[in-house]
Amino acid sequence: MELRKGLEDIAIKETEITYIDGVLGRLYYRGYSIYDLAEFSNFEETAYLIWFGKLPNKKELQEIKETLAEEREIPEYITEFIKNVRKDANPMDVLRTAVSMLGIEDKSNEELWKKAVKLTAKIPTIISYFDRVRKGLDIVHPDPSLSHAENFLYMMRGEKPNPIDSRTMDVAMILHMDHEMNASTFACLVVASTLSDLYSAITAGISALKGPLHGGANAEALKQFMEIGSKDKVEEYILKKLETGQRIMGFGHRIYKTYDPRAKILKEYARNLAKEKGKMELFEIAEKVDEIGCKILGKKNIYPNVDFYAGLVFYFLGFDPDLFPTVFASARIVGWTAHVMEYLKDNKLIRPKAIYKGEIGRKYINVENRE
Amino acid sequence: MELRKGLEDIAIKETEITYIDGVLGRLYYRGYSIYDLAEFSNFEETAYLIWFGKLPNKKELQEIKETLAEEREIPEYITEFIKNVRKDANPMDVLRTAVSMLGIEDKSNEELWKKAVKLTAKIPTIISYFDRVRKGLDIVHPDPSLSHAENFLYMMRGEKPNPIDSRTMDVAMILHMDHEMNASTFACLVVASTLSDLYSAITAGISALKGPLHGGANAEALKQFMEIGSKDKVEEYILKKLETGQRIMGFGHRIYKTYDPRAKILKEYARNLAKEKGKMELFEIAEKVDEIGCKILGKKNIYPNVDFYAGLVFYFLGFDPDLFPTVFASARIVGWTAHVMEYLKDNKLIRPKAIYKGEIGRKYINVENRE
Repeated sequence: MELRKGLEDIAIKETEITYIDGVLGRLYYRGYSIYDLAEFSNFEETAYLIWFGKLPNKKELQEIKETLAEEREIPEYITEFIKNVRKDANPMDVLRTAVSMLGIEDKSNEELWKKAVKLTAKIPTIISYFDRVRKGLDIVHPDPSLSHAENFLYMMRGEKPNPIDSRTMDVAMILHMDHEMNASTFACLVVASTLSDLYSAITAGISALKGPLHGGANAEALKQFMEIGSKDKVEEYILKKLETGQRIMGFGHRIYKTYDPRAKILKEYARNLAKEKGKMELFEIAEKVDEIGCKILGKKNIYPNVDFYAGLVFYFLGFDPDLFPTVFASARIVGWTAHVMEYLKDNKLIRPKAIYKGEIGRKYINVENRE
Repeated sequence: MELRKGLEDIAIKETEITYIDGVLGRLYYRGYSIYDLAEFSNFEETAYLIWFGKLPNKKELQEIKETLAEEREIPEYITEFIKNVRKDANPMDVLRTAVSMLGIEDKSNEELWKKAVKLTAKIPTIISYFDRVRKGLDIVHPDPSLSHAENFLYMMRGEKPNPIDSRTMDVAMILHMDHEMNASTFACLVVASTLSDLYSAITAGISALKGPLHGGANAEALKQFMEIGSKDKVEEYILKKLETGQRIMGFGHRIYKTYDPRAKILKEYARNLAKEKGKMELFEIAEKVDEIGCKILGKKNIYPNVDFYAGLVFYFLGFDPDLFPTVFASARIVGWTAHVMEYLKDNKLIRPKAIYKGEIGRKYINVENRE
């Protein structure tokens, strides 16, 4: 039996959802370039594309927008849970628990895609309610007249965001929506493959995304820029890190051997936001880490990944760093649910093995006679 | 890239915890035969063995018993959640949510094994509180003077169980405690491999165990015996099932190509309980399904698995069928946590891939011009 610890280079499924060209640095959702989607599309349209395999026509787009807008409110007892939970709770723990609670509530036999849409609609509500409650602010109920991305920022802030912020949020969510297989999507599939329910699968996805090696990386990248503190300290910082065998946060990816297209796109949005918010210094530190990092690590095909600029963008948009994984989840829920639906079309229980390396045939001795 | 959908015959790790000999029908925990453990050991001792790799001496056994007994009570607000949750909630959904809540609460940096012991102590409390509340009964607080298995039945029933029931519960829990890799244990590992926390990992395990292909199979086996209704209808029932290409529930296992040793052990406990409870008719139906099933399916190396008699045993012990997966979880938590601890000693992020089969380079068309 083969030992394949991280399952590197093992395909768990065939897919028609997402294609990554790690050598050329290209990413496609349902065959559409991420560059086109980031430039022309929005959350609702790209979510529809990922779920259903085609861009919606006018009527379909209207319908998905309306459903997403109508389904944002969460049941009262989950709002109560959020109001009563400890204020220093980890936001991913709160999100995981709230989604698990939604699973208790949903007794319907609706088709999976309907459950997926409804759950997607509710994630930003859970996140923003918790953030406002912990800050001692009144919760802001969703406004169905706003787009998914706009409404998310509106619920967080209590006021409507300007067009630059809204558009940036839309794009950031598009870029995080799917990424073929990854630990959280795979966790969803392992659960779904037992024919457990969609909420159980998504709970597992959130559980996996919480890990610092997965959804926690963007906050680490931001922390690093803040730690560096000024542009002229970047070179020294990087060299010291690399000399002591440490990683530059936000660099490197198991699949991309070149610049991650998502990082390329986010970089420009981060620059614009930095200008708007008067935070150019922090952006320029990041840009310099990018430049020097690429010069040194690029020789080993190690380049910035999506997390490198995502932390900056989320921070400029007003999210606290401990919320970043939840924002990631609010987008990735689309990919999670789409992959579950695709896998279940031809389900096979996911059950690997282990190789036994211990003793066999030890003799049971009564406790009185044990050392 | 290889497509290996169910990950059959791929080893995700090396292990010193459990060894299954599927050809000879043998099962070992830490090198000890399951027959010895079922005959001589108990929940606390076998849990210690699985966690720490050796049988505890007198002092160690006393300590683990005390810790497990002391840590049974759950925080008040989780009891409140259980009291207020809808009575028709799926017990696995309640368990998943309650464990997720425990994760919110635990802000300690304790070693993983301590967290594992504390969580293991609390699972029966969550299950029995919910079952009593939904039946309109007062909850029964844990009694620290009772063993883990005894106390579980005590909290369920409100009175101390007799020695036969206690011993059966102990044995049933030992038999369900670990089974090398499987979908729920693997779900725990996928989550843990991102360096997420233990509660997140166990939440994913519960999510996977909920599936009818995994933790739901024992209830299906019981349902089948009830459906058959009498001994003389068994043969006809089986033949009809097989002729129409249906499965006999409780038969067959991806690893065992002979009689599952756990089923062999549980069969005798089921027989004794059936006598004690005056339910011999139901047991004899099961025994006949076993006999005729083996005669026909044995030729294809398909035999009863643990679920075949586990459903009967749990039912005779007084558990409703929808609780069976939670009882399974109350034992498997030991294996889940042990495998997580073992995996993290030499962690590697679990991230398989997918093979893309869709189009590439579709041209983005504005919504106004779409069909």
